[in-house]
Amino acid sequence: MDSLTQYRDSIKERLDNADLLVAKLVHENTVLTQTVETKTQEIEGFQQQIHGLEEKVRELTSLQAKQEENMEIVKDLFEHLCGVRVHKSYEDDTGLWFDTSQGSKNGIMDYKLGFVKSESFPGTEVIYVPLLKQRTSDELRILQNQIPAYMFDTLSFPLKALHQFYSKMARCLNKKVNENN
Amino acid sequence: MDSLTQYRDSIKERLDNADLLVAKLVHENTVLTQTVETKTQEIEGFQQQIHGLEEKVRELTSLQAKQEENMEIVKDLFEHLCGVRVHKSYEDDTGLWFDTSQGSKNGIMDYKLGFVKSESFPGTEVIYVPLLKQRTSDELRILQNQIPAYMFDTLSFPLKALHQFYSKMARCLNKKVNENN
Repeated sequence: MDSLTQYRDSIKERLDNADLLVAKLVHENTVLTQTVETKTQEIEGFQQQIHGLEEKVRELTSLQAKQEENMEIVKDLFEHLCGVRVHKSYEDDTGLWFDTSQGSKNGIMDYKLGFVKSESFPGTEVIYVPLLKQRTSDELRILQNQIPAYMFDTLSFPLKALHQFYSKMARCLNKKVNENN
Repeated sequence: MDSLTQYRDSIKERLDNADLLVAKLVHENTVLTQTVETKTQEIEGFQQQIHGLEEKVRELTSLQAKQEENMEIVKDLFEHLCGVRVHKSYEDDTGLWFDTSQGSKNGIMDYKLGFVKSESFPGTEVIYVPLLKQRTSDELRILQNQIPAYMFDTLSFPLKALHQFYSKMARCLNKKVNENN
């Protein structure tokens, strides 16, 4: 082979290699551009999803505040209407329990009411537990003049007698007692 | 210029152009690879954000169900304890309104209670509106034997008299009335 032919071949190889490299790079470039496009679309989708979820969280948070407000409103209504305030309710293995205050300006009794599956009679049994720890001796003396002795003990009765229990307690607490009695 | 020199120059130009193109493509490639990496990180961030938001929506939805359940539990308690059921509450320009039923097996009275800013006296005024549309004539006759005539009209009184109103209503509805009276 003469030197010119050799030179030509070597040039041709360099040019072919350059073409191959360019083709490879162009291909990689196309793949990368498509990947960027796919990811951009994915990101748009995620952003929309986040927007929707944030909206949902806002709605639920505002609904929650509204529900809490409604609960307070209903509790306030019953305090004014029936002289009863439910402070908290909770559930345990035995049943459902409420920390409650009942009364008026003449006297207030704090008690726990439990609603438990009855062992004594069919249906639900109510457990009444007077809560007296917070009371001063003066307050206790007044309550003792309003409320019969058995109501200072834990009681239990069927659910259907609960309204009768409430009415009895209301009548007792309504009595005006002279503090010097 | 001889033809060999011309040939060499043209080859050199083609090779230089190929090198330039390769350099340009490699640069584009690097930029695209970085873009893909950035977008991949962004996507990871969004996915975490979505995960957190979904968790928050789940929590709030379950809290909402719990609050609704608590509201029903408190309403049930007051129905058993005080013989009062609040069916719904709503607010309008005048104030806060409750659709309520009060009573026991001897008789039930449906009424609306409104809590409005008073024009007659300081503080909150209660508006009582009896709801009698759903009553059969037999039921009305029994109610008329239990409840004094003035309680079949709209009444208004100060908030502090609400418990007294409730007690009066409870006493009346507790009366056993012979249907043949």
